[in-house]
Amino acid sequence: MTELNTAAPGLIVEDYRSRILSGWLSHNACAWEDYTRHEFVRKLGEGSLPRSVFMAYLIQDYIFLLHYSRAWAMAVVKSETVDQMRSSAATIHGLINEEIQLHIGICAREGISEAELLGAEEASENIAYTRYVMDAGLSGDLLDLLAVLAPCVFGYGHIGLTLANNRNPKPLYREWIDAYCGDEYQRMCFGVANLIDEVAVSRLGDNAESNPRWIGLCRKFGIATRLEVDFWSMGFRLG
Amino acid sequence: MTELNTAAPGLIVEDYRSRILSGWLSHNACAWEDYTRHEFVRKLGEGSLPRSVFMAYLIQDYIFLLHYSRAWAMAVVKSETVDQMRSSAATIHGLINEEIQLHIGICAREGISEAELLGAEEASENIAYTRYVMDAGLSGDLLDLLAVLAPCVFGYGHIGLTLANNRNPKPLYREWIDAYCGDEYQRMCFGVANLIDEVAVSRLGDNAESNPRWIGLCRKFGIATRLEVDFWSMGFRLG
Amino acid sequence: MTELNTAAPGLIVEDYRSRILSGWLSHNACAWEDYTRHEFVRKLGEGSLPRSVFMAYLIQDYIFLLHYSRAWAMAVVKSETVDQMRSSAATIHGLINEEIQLHIGICAREGISEAELLGAEEASENIAYTRYVMDAGLSGDLLDLLAVLAPCVFGYGHIGLTLANNRNPKPLYREWIDAYCGDEYQRMCFGVANLIDEVAVSRLGDNAESNPRWIGLCRKFGIATRLEVDFWSMGFRLG
Amino acid sequence: MTELNTAAPGLIVEDYRSRILSGWLSHNACAWEDYTRHEFVRKLGEGSLPRSVFMAYLIQDYIFLLHYSRAWAMAVVKSETVDQMRSSAATIHGLINEEIQLHIGICAREGISEAELLGAEEASENIAYTRYVMDAGLSGDLLDLLAVLAPCVFGYGHIGLTLANNRNPKPLYREWIDAYCGDEYQRMCFGVANLIDEVAVSRLGDNAESNPRWIGLCRKFGIATRLEVDFWSMGFRLG
Repeated sequence: MTELNTAAPGLIVEDYRSRILSGWLSHNACAWEDYTRHEFVRKLGEGSLPRSVFMAYLIQDYIFLLHYSRAWAMAVVKSETVDQMRSSAATIHGLINEEIQLHIGICAREGISEAELLGAEEASENIAYTRYVMDAGLSGDLLDLLAVLAPCVFGYGHIGLTLANNRNPKPLYREWIDAYCGDEYQRMCFGVANLIDEVAVSRLGDNAESNPRWIGLCRKFGIATRLEVDFWSMGFRLG
Repeated sequence: MTELNTAAPGLIVEDYRSRILSGWLSHNACAWEDYTRHEFVRKLGEGSLPRSVFMAYLIQDYIFLLHYSRAWAMAVVKSETVDQMRSSAATIHGLINEEIQLHIGICAREGISEAELLGAEEASENIAYTRYVMDAGLSGDLLDLLAVLAPCVFGYGHIGLTLANNRNPKPLYREWIDAYCGDEYQRMCFGVANLIDEVAVSRLGDNAESNPRWIGLCRKFGIATRLEVDFWSMGFRLG
Repeated sequence: MTELNTAAPGLIVEDYRSRILSGWLSHNACAWEDYTRHEFVRKLGEGSLPRSVFMAYLIQDYIFLLHYSRAWAMAVVKSETVDQMRSSAATIHGLINEEIQLHIGICAREGISEAELLGAEEASENIAYTRYVMDAGLSGDLLDLLAVLAPCVFGYGHIGLTLANNRNPKPLYREWIDAYCGDEYQRMCFGVANLIDEVAVSRLGDNAESNPRWIGLCRKFGIATRLEVDFWSMGFRLG
Repeated sequence: MTELNTAAPGLIVEDYRSRILSGWLSHNACAWEDYTRHEFVRKLGEGSLPRSVFMAYLIQDYIFLLHYSRAWAMAVVKSETVDQMRSSAATIHGLINEEIQLHIGICAREGISEAELLGAEEASENIAYTRYVMDAGLSGDLLDLLAVLAPCVFGYGHIGLTLANNRNPKPLYREWIDAYCGDEYQRMCFGVANLIDEVAVSRLGDNAESNPRWIGLCRKFGIATRLEVDFWSMGFRLG
C-alpha cells in the first residue's frame, strides 16, 4: 500500500495514484470543485456551519451509509476474483462497523439514538444518490458500479485531507474531519484506487480512454458527483 | 376484465377494484391528494399550464418511461408464475411501444427528435423516483416492487379519468389526457390491479393488512407517491 | 433485417452474419458440435428418438423457457438504449407468447396440461443452465448476459435449419422442427445477432477480439453451450 | 449467543434453536438425511474416503465458497436493518477470510496453489447449486434467499458436530472436521439461525407456517438440500 503524503495538499487527489480516477476527475473538474469546495465543506472547515445543518446532514448520512454499504455488497456480488471480493468486503466492514460509529457516536452525544436515526425520513437527495448508485451496479458491470461509488470515497478522503490542517475550534467538526483524514479512512481510499485500476484493466484494457465505454463511465462519475453536491445542499435545506 | 365506469368520477380510484390498492391509498391519502391534484395537474386540465413547463416535463417523462419499463422488466425477473410474467411483459410492451409514442409524437411536432430526447440530461427528481423503484425491486420481492410501481400506473389512470371531461381548448394537453383516459391505458390499470391483488394473496395471505409487511408496503407506496409529487414540481423548476 | 438464405445449410451458422457470434463459435467449435450434433438432435431428425425421451425433454424445456424469459427480462433491465430494450422485449414476447405455445400445444395433445407442466420437478441440468444465465446477467453487463443467452437462440435456429429438409415421418417431431426453422424463429435469431454485434461495439469497441474481456466472453459462451449438451442428455436420463 | 451443547448429538439440529429452521427440516427430512448421511460424509468420518475424491470435492468447494460469499453479499443488498446487514457481512467475512483458508491451506500442502484453484473448471453440480442460490435471492426477498443459503450453513455445522467424536486417524479429514465443529463455525450457525428467525417474523409474522409462502420456502430449502446431495456425489464422479 502506497504511503500517504499529507504534506502536499495541493496534489491531494493525485496522491491516490489511480490513473482511472485521474481521468474521471479531469473530465468532471467543475462538478468536482462544486462538490469538494461546497459552501457546506468550507463552513465545516471554518467552524461556521450551523450545528442544525450539520446534524441534519449527519442523520441523512447515516441512512446514506446503509445504502452505500449495500452498494459495496453489490460490488462483492459482481466481483470476478477473490481479491476483488476481499477488497469490497473490507470496504463494507469499514463502512458499517467503523465509519458509521462516527455518526452513531456524535448523534448519541447530541441526544439522538440509533433507533431515531433509523426512523428518520430519507430525504429525496439521499434517495436519488444511493439508488442511482445501486442501479448503476445492477445495470452495468463492476466497473460501472465503481465509477459511481468513487466520488463519495475519494471526495471525503480529499476533503478530510484538505480540512486536516484547519484550525477550527469546534470539537464536533474536528471529530468528523479527523475521521476522514485519518489513516484508516485514507487506507481505504488507496485500496479502492487500486481496485478501480485493476478492474479497469480487466474490463477496458491498458488504454482505457480509447474504449467506447470511457465517456459513459466519465459521465456516470459526473452524475454521482453532482448528486454529492445536492447532498451537501440538502444539509442547508433541512437544517 | 371488469368494465370501466367513467360515469362516476368521484369513485374513480375505487373503480380499479383492488383491495390492496385501496389499502395503500387510504394509508397515503394526503400524499395521493398532493400528487393527483397537484398544481401541474390542475393547470394541465384548465389549459393554463405553460407550454414550456409541459415540454420540460414531457422530455423528462420520456426518460422516466425507459427506466420505468426496466423496472417492469424487473417484475418479469421476479415473477413466480407464467401469468405474472405475461402480465408484466404486456405492461412493458404497452410502455415502450405505445405510451412512449405519445411522447415521441408530441415532441416531434414540437421540433424535438427522439435523439434529442435521449440526450436530455436527467433531472435529479427523475433519478430519485426511477432508481428508488428499481432498488425496491432488487431488495424486496415482487410485491415490494409492485407497491412502488403502483402510484404511477394508477395516478395517471386516475388523473386521465378526472381530466377526461374537462373542456380545455389546448389540443396539446387534450392529446395527453386522451392517452391516459383511453381504453388502452385504462385496461392496463385493471390488469395491474389484478396482478397486485393476486401477488398480495400469494405473499401475504388473505388478510394482507395483518401481515407484518403491510405497514412497510404502505410506506413504500407513500414514498413513491411523494416522488411523483416532486416529479410534477420538477416541471415548473425546469420549464 | 437481412433475408434468410435457407439454400445453403452448410453455411447456416455464418448466415446470421454476426461477427461476434462467429468469434464465440470458433473458440468453442467442439462444444458446439457436441451440442448441435448431439445424439438427441440426430435421433429427433431421424425420427428414432423415443417419444418418452422427447416428452421428458419438452416438459423441462417448458420450465426452461420461463426462466429463459426471465433472463431476457434481465436484458431489458440492463439495456442502455431504447432499441436494445425493444429488441429484448420483443424476444420475451416471442418466448412467452409464441415459442411456449409449441410446448403447451404438444403437451396438451399428449394429455399433459399446463398446470402439470408448471408442477413438474425441475431437473438439475435445467437449474444449472438457467440459473447460470441469470447470474451471468446479474454479475456482468449486458454483453456478458448476451454471451450466455446466445447458445440457446442460435443453436436451436441452427438445428431447426439443419433438420428442416429431413424426411422423418413423425408429425410430433416435425412440428418441433418446423417451429425452429420457421420464419418467426429465424427472424428472432437475426434480431439477436444484430443486438449482440451492436452491444459488443458499444462495450468492447470495433476490435472486440483484442479487448481483455474477449476470452472471458468466449468462455462464458462455452460454458452455456456445455450446459446445453447436458440438457439434451437430461432427456435420455429422464425419458 | 446460546451455548452449544455438543453432549447431545442426537439433538444437534435442534440445538440451533431456530423455529423456522426446524420447520424447514421437518418438511425435508428425507433430503436432509440423504445430505447429512451421504456416503461421502460417512466415509469422511470413517477415514475411508479416497483422497482423490476428497481433493476433487475440496477444489470445487473452494469455487463454491466464492459464489456462496457472493450470495451472502446479496443478503446484505437485500437487508432492511443494520443488524441484518452486520450479520450477513460477518458471514461473508467468515467465509472469504476464514473458512476458505481451510481450503487454501489443505490444497497448498497437497501441492495445489490458489491460482490453480481459481483456474479449476467448475463442475455442473457446483454451477447448479450456487447459481440457484443467487437467483433465489434475486427473484425473491431476503427470506427466500436465506431459505436456500441455510442447508449449507447448518448441514456443515451438523456434520461437523456429528463427526467430531469420530476417531478416524486421517489428519487431512480431521482438519476439515475440526473446522466445522469448531467454535468459530458453530457461532456462525447460531448467528444465521437468529437472523433467519428474525427475518421470518418480519416477513411472515409470528405464525410463519400459516403464511401462504411457507410451502414455497420449504420447497426452496428442499431444492437446495438436494443440490447439496449432488455436490457430495460430484466428489465421487470427479475424484
